[in-house]
Amino acid sequence: MGRWRPDARERLKQAAVELFAEQGFAATTVPQITARAGLTTRTFFRHFADKREVLFGGEEIPAMATRLIADAPASLDPAAVIIEGLRTVAETRFEGRREEVRLNRDIIRSDPGLAERDLRKRADLAAAIRAGFISRGVAVTTAALLAESTVTVLYVALDAWLDQDGDRALFEIMLGTLESLQGALGRMWLGRMLLGRRMR
Amino acid sequence: MGRWRPDARERLKQAAVELFAEQGFAATTVPQITARAGLTTRTFFRHFADKREVLFGGEEIPAMATRLIADAPASLDPAAVIIEGLRTVAETRFEGRREEVRLNRDIIRSDPGLAERDLRKRADLAAAIRAGFISRGVAVTTAALLAESTVTVLYVALDAWLDQDGDRALFEIMLGTLESLQGALGRMWLGRMLLGRRMR
Repeated sequence: MGRWRPDARERLKQAAVELFAEQGFAATTVPQITARAGLTTRTFFRHFADKREVLFGGEEIPAMATRLIADAPASLDPAAVIIEGLRTVAETRFEGRREEVRLNRDIIRSDPGLAERDLRKRADLAAAIRAGFISRGVAVTTAALLAESTVTVLYVALDAWLDQDGDRALFEIMLGTLESLQGALGRMWLGRMLLGRRMR
Repeated sequence: MGRWRPDARERLKQAAVELFAEQGFAATTVPQITARAGLTTRTFFRHFADKREVLFGGEEIPAMATRLIADAPASLDPAAVIIEGLRTVAETRFEGRREEVRLNRDIIRSDPGLAERDLRKRADLAAAIRAGFISRGVAVTTAALLAESTVTVLYVALDAWLDQDGDRALFEIMLGTLESLQGALGRMWLGRMLLGRRMR
């Protein structure tokens, strides 16, 4: 098969994450990563714009969300589109890679610049979902609320999945998180009622 | 009253926002701001760490959230604490200042660095609310969901308040947004049911 192997991207990613965990993100260089992976820096830059991109996977998740929303049958309710989307993301992007995802998260948390980038990615995902639903004719405010809630469920469920003692599937945890979110919102509604007398 | 006047902070803020709107955020300097306000740069730096802080008001809102949650009676349900908090923030920080808040928002949107900072402030607010509820004994996941939902309602309602043709009060719009969020979540739950057969 020669020098080029189809798993170069995965090998680079694994080498990078190992080095980030061993010696810190800031101290790790691209030549160190390629040396560990047994590949050239040229190959590295064919796959990643910089070492931060190893952790964030480019535009993959927002682009995936855009595609999933655009490809869903026109008759499918936005709610069903979201549930299907969460399932697809959980099963194709996260399930079976828990240790790697946890390591990734812990590296991101350890560096303020990476944490900022993570917020940007999160905002990009919400913007992609919002735009996708607006294209399907959903009202702007509803689209924004659906987008923010989806991102909240994804991020809160990801943490619960990474921090669990057991071995529950991410998608199951997402559904539980969605249920808890509804419960929390229901209580907020109740709170409004309890305070109604003071409200005017 | 001499050189010091109690409204220096407000005068600096007004001068800065006018200049940002007229000539752009990047092109505006602190000496230009103080010249327009008729104050010294020394006075400026007593009130603000840099020109960005004029737009973000320091840690005010996260600190306010921390205080409101800590000061709420122990018997008060988290939901009621949030509703009360949203009302206090709406009435003391935003109501009656719509033009100024809109100008602020548009300046922030126009500059990628400011937009990043806005995401950071938003994350700080969610973290303050989450920590406040954890201190009150709320479970970690529930606290995270309450915090994210509160921030979603605040930001989505703020945009709707700024972009409305009418003159509805921000707090009324927040309550409507909360209701829409519940509706959207209810539909997500329905979506789960509709897809139940395919779910395992």
